[in-house]
Amino acid sequence: MESIVDGKTRLFAILGDPIAQVKSPAQVTASLRARSRNAILVPFHVTSEDFDEIVLALKAIRNLDGLVITVPHKFTAFRHCAETTARAEFLGAVNVMRRSSSGVWEGDMCDGRGFVDAILEKGGVLAGKRALLLGAGGAGTAIGYALLEAGVAELSIHDIDRSRLDELVGKLRQRFGDRVTDGAPDPMAFDVLANATPAGMENLQKSPVDLDRLRPATIVGDVVTATGETALIRAARSKGCPFSTGHDMYQALQEKMVEFLLSSD
Amino acid sequence: MESIVDGKTRLFAILGDPIAQVKSPAQVTASLRARSRNAILVPFHVTSEDFDEIVLALKAIRNLDGLVITVPHKFTAFRHCAETTARAEFLGAVNVMRRSSSGVWEGDMCDGRGFVDAILEKGGVLAGKRALLLGAGGAGTAIGYALLEAGVAELSIHDIDRSRLDELVGKLRQRFGDRVTDGAPDPMAFDVLANATPAGMENLQKSPVDLDRLRPATIVGDVVTATGETALIRAARSKGCPFSTGHDMYQALQEKMVEFLLSSD
Repeated sequence: MESIVDGKTRLFAILGDPIAQVKSPAQVTASLRARSRNAILVPFHVTSEDFDEIVLALKAIRNLDGLVITVPHKFTAFRHCAETTARAEFLGAVNVMRRSSSGVWEGDMCDGRGFVDAILEKGGVLAGKRALLLGAGGAGTAIGYALLEAGVAELSIHDIDRSRLDELVGKLRQRFGDRVTDGAPDPMAFDVLANATPAGMENLQKSPVDLDRLRPATIVGDVVTATGETALIRAARSKGCPFSTGHDMYQALQEKMVEFLLSSD
Repeated sequence: MESIVDGKTRLFAILGDPIAQVKSPAQVTASLRARSRNAILVPFHVTSEDFDEIVLALKAIRNLDGLVITVPHKFTAFRHCAETTARAEFLGAVNVMRRSSSGVWEGDMCDGRGFVDAILEKGGVLAGKRALLLGAGGAGTAIGYALLEAGVAELSIHDIDRSRLDELVGKLRQRFGDRVTDGAPDPMAFDVLANATPAGMENLQKSPVDLDRLRPATIVGDVVTATGETALIRAARSKGCPFSTGHDMYQALQEKMVEFLLSSD
């Protein structure tokens, strides 16, 4: 295609508030073009107040095939899907929606899958391993579910917010049983260390764990997408741990989203 | 800007049914980029049934600054503008809408202006001239108004549909008085010949007038955007008439639309 866009271009939109900071329009559009699709992901600045009305209307645009959902709409968007994956159902949230070939809107939540895929792509093995998850917020919830779905034998979760931690552990135990525990944030005892806290985002030197207790065999994954290397990733690199950064996770997530958006064909 | 689109991209959309054939997304987007705007015009396939709901919702998207309206929505869109230009008001139709700096939606109808601008850009003079307009449909109505607004001394209109002709002549006379007449499609008596019929679109050889009676001094304008030269334009070229093609008109129209869409800043 010679033009940036033409009358035959198929549309995808990302809905968020704020929107100016999102990287998906550039990255997903590049990924769509790399697959020879005449398609584009455009940013829509949508407030919570307007979200329901706008989603209903967007569904009526005939050449709009899917949506990417970002903060603060992931939970609200769930209600706009006629069908969702089991993980989206469990999380009560979606970050992608597509119009199926039968015209039904389907939703999925890829956030945790991006994290897991980034580790698998680096050659890390998760099945049967003992994993420590730091952070029980939105990212931690999606990643915890994805790690259990990927077959970790044990998932131990830590969060400084005790009530948030108890809620997530209880919720995951309902689905995955006693593979889920809570515990101290000591990486020594684990094969996998997943940071889903913002530690390192504002201050690269800040670590969510005692890095002296990180073993060289432990797989390290970080959600932080700071400019520059976080203390956690720097320690993993210097000790020879397999690791994936927040940027690796984000890249894998973008690919997961594109696969989902295009697979209704 | 390196990317096709990013989180800061400002949005414009063209609404029509069908939409795949429209050229504005490519051309207007190129024009926006040539003005160093991080902005894009995307195609929205919107049916008449869904038009009202979709326009209301699009107005709530905070980074969407304007709309281009094409067939069959130009009359319906008029009702969605809080303010319109005098010509849009007269025609009861708009082909562009923008969000003003005060948040009010303003509309204009540029279709006739594109035709007039294309002639003026070629050095043609319209003020004080006698003009013959062929075709009293949507395009003819907009062009007739624009020719009168541009100062032609006389506008004689011809259409094979007598009731449509009478309606347009009557309507234009209310606003422009006896400068407006109906008459035979004989170019000999006129300084300006405007073709707003589809003659030449399906068959390049078909002419809306007797080309033997075209004088070399007569300015010729054609709305037909066929691939290849219409008989009317070919005759104008061979006789040495100043002329503008449907493509010239379309280019001028695109520029008019971009100027309108951006001038709310």
